[in-house]
Formats: sequence, structure tokens, C-alpha cells
Amino acid sequence: MRILLVGANGLLGRAVHATLTEGAGGDEVVTASRSSGEPVDLTDAASIAALYSRVGTVDAVACTAGVTPFAPLPELSLGQYQAGLTDKLLGQIALVRLGLDHVTDGGSFTLISGILGEDPIATGSVAATVNGGLYAFVRAAAIELPRGLRINTVSPTVFTEAWDDYGPYFPGYPPVPVADAARGFVKSIAGRQTGQVYRIGY
Amino acid sequence: MRILLVGANGLLGRAVHATLTEGAGGDEVVTASRSSGEPVDLTDAASIAALYSRVGTVDAVACTAGVTPFAPLPELSLGQYQAGLTDKLLGQIALVRLGLDHVTDGGSFTLISGILGEDPIATGSVAATVNGGLYAFVRAAAIELPRGLRINTVSPTVFTEAWDDYGPYFPGYPPVPVADAARGFVKSIAGRQTGQVYRIGY
Repeated sequence: MRILLVGANGLLGRAVHATLTEGAGGDEVVTASRSSGEPVDLTDAASIAALYSRVGTVDAVACTAGVTPFAPLPELSLGQYQAGLTDKLLGQIALVRLGLDHVTDGGSFTLISGILGEDPIATGSVAATVNGGLYAFVRAAAIELPRGLRINTVSPTVFTEAWDDYGPYFPGYPPVPVADAARGFVKSIAGRQTGQVYRIGY
Repeated sequence: MRILLVGANGLLGRAVHATLTEGAGGDEVVTASRSSGEPVDLTDAASIAALYSRVGTVDAVACTAGVTPFAPLPELSLGQYQAGLTDKLLGQIALVRLGLDHVTDGGSFTLISGILGEDPIATGSVAATVNGGLYAFVRAAAIELPRGLRINTVSPTVFTEAWDDYGPYFPGYPPVPVADAARGFVKSIAGRQTGQVYRIGY
């Protein structure tokens, strides 16, 4: 398969890339991100359209990109909520909406969400809102996509590899190896399911 | 109790108003909406701040307002997703964020979401995304609100009173009387729960 991977440069993106390309039957992966591979900015629809125009047709689109601000709720500005919604939520919706004509029949979109949409932590209300929106978007989009196109989201808990930085914010949350989340992307891309939220590590 | 009701002019808003004010022990309800009572536009933060400034302190804020576009997913523009997120999702988040200092200790915010966030219909992907974001926002905000403030969302299915207009879009969904959804607001306002999604009629 030929797969467009957006956010290829991050911890999760690198793990997804490694998992998809390993072995003799590995997939062809076109990498994109803000800073390496094909350039793309999820907050800029023209940038997404240009990406699809350059890349052409793929069998799957996988996204591991998306940023949300973290701060105590009484300190969060409306601009910070807006920023998270625009980047990780609307940005991934745009990746689907603008990619409809660039994915082969039966192909898939796999978006990244996260545990906070259903199991929140303090300072995480923007991420929670965004992730909850993503769970619902994939359920809704799945019943409307044309040509057998599929859509799922991978929702991991905090990664073992990021525990030193984020562990203090996740008291009592068992971390999960990032490779487990990468397998969620493989399940979505190579499987036949649609409209699913793949919980990873929780 | 003194309650600020935003969206008081709609089908649900009128039912919530009637339920809250009925009988001898009825509450004092300050009504607000785009078109009647105290004027407010949820997409304009300055308008929300001005509303709170005029209204002063209340024991509860209830919102029955919020608009989302409906169209088949392949026909929805990114601007329509943006419009729904800005109005019903970010608008209600703004009502909470800007209202933190205007609600008495232990008081409540009650937001309106809807069934489509977990049980989607065709043409409803914007509403689904918004409602899913709202479920997650109230769960996340509930663990961070100061002074014992509470927050819940009422998530109704389609209303019996609106069945002639919307029934064809909800095949096999049993409708629910709008008065049942109004009771969800009473449960949130007069009860002690927080972080809950009150499903009405499903």
C-alpha cells in the first residue's frame, strides 16, 4: 500500500513509520509534517490541498499530528481553546474532507486522538474537548464516506517513552509503549473496520 | 435560585423556562438570547462578557442555544465545520469560561449537546463533532472548576414537537417530549452531580 503519514517527525509518527515499513512486505510511506518530508500545516487548508496535489493518490492517510495547549481551566484563554480546536480537531477534519478524492476505494483515514477525551486530567480540558470531538467525528463520518472509504481514530494513553516529561500530569495512569499505538494505526489501515475508537493502553 | 437561561427563545429554552418557573417555589430566571430578553451572541466573547456584567451573580447558568450546519459530509465546507465549532462548542465553552466569577459557590453550568455525538445520522457530522466535544468538555471541566462549581450537559434525542420537521432525518429514532429534556436541566441545576452527560430519550 501507499500511505500518506502526516506528523511523521514526532515520537508517534516515527513509530508508525517504522512499523509500516518494516520487513519485506513493507508499505510505501510518504511522510509529511511541519518540519520535514512533504511540508504541511494542518491549520492551513491551502497547505493541505497542496499536499494532496503533490502526493496524488494513496491507499491510506494516517495522522499523528495535532497540538493542544495545556493549562488550568481558569487560566485558559478562549484563544487557547480556539487554537486547539483549529489545529488538532479542525486540522484533522480538513485532512479528511480535502482528501476524499485522493484515497483509493476502500482506503482509510486514521486520526490521532487520546485518552483525555474520556478520562481527563487537570490542565487537559482543551485536549479533552478536541479528543471527544474526534471520537464523534469518526463515528459520524464513517456512515457517510463514499466508495467504501473508512475512518478510525487511535486513542492512546501517555507513552512510556514520554513518561519522564508527562508522567507527573498522569498520576496513576499506566503508560504504554508507543509501538502499541503504532499497531493501532496498522489495525485501522490494514483491517476492514470503520467508525472505531481504538483505545491503546487503557 | 437565580438562573441565567441562554437560548430562552427556542423550543427547548421555552420548556426549560416553564419548568423552572412553575409553581410557588419557582426560580427567578433571567432570559437571554440573540433575539429576546438580554441580548447575547455566543460567537462574540465581548457580548458574553457584557451579558454577565449586566446580569451580575447567578446560582446557575443554563444554555439551550447553539447552531450547527447539516449537510452530507462530501458537501460540507471547512467553513461550515468551523461555524459549528465556533457557535455551539466554543460559544458554550466561552459561557463557562467567562462566567466563572459570576456563579455562586456550588452553582452550576448546564450545556446543551445532543444524541448525534454518539449515535450519528447522515448529514450530521458537524453536530456529532460538536456534541462529542461537549461531552468531553464537561467531564474535563468538572474536575477543575473552583468553589464547588458544577457542570453537566443535557443530551436529548429529537423532540416530539419537532418531529414533523426532523423526523425524516432520524429513521427509527423514538422522539422524546421536550419537557423531558427540560427535566434534565432541573436535575443538573437542583441536584449535586457534576461531569455528567444526561441522555434524554435514548
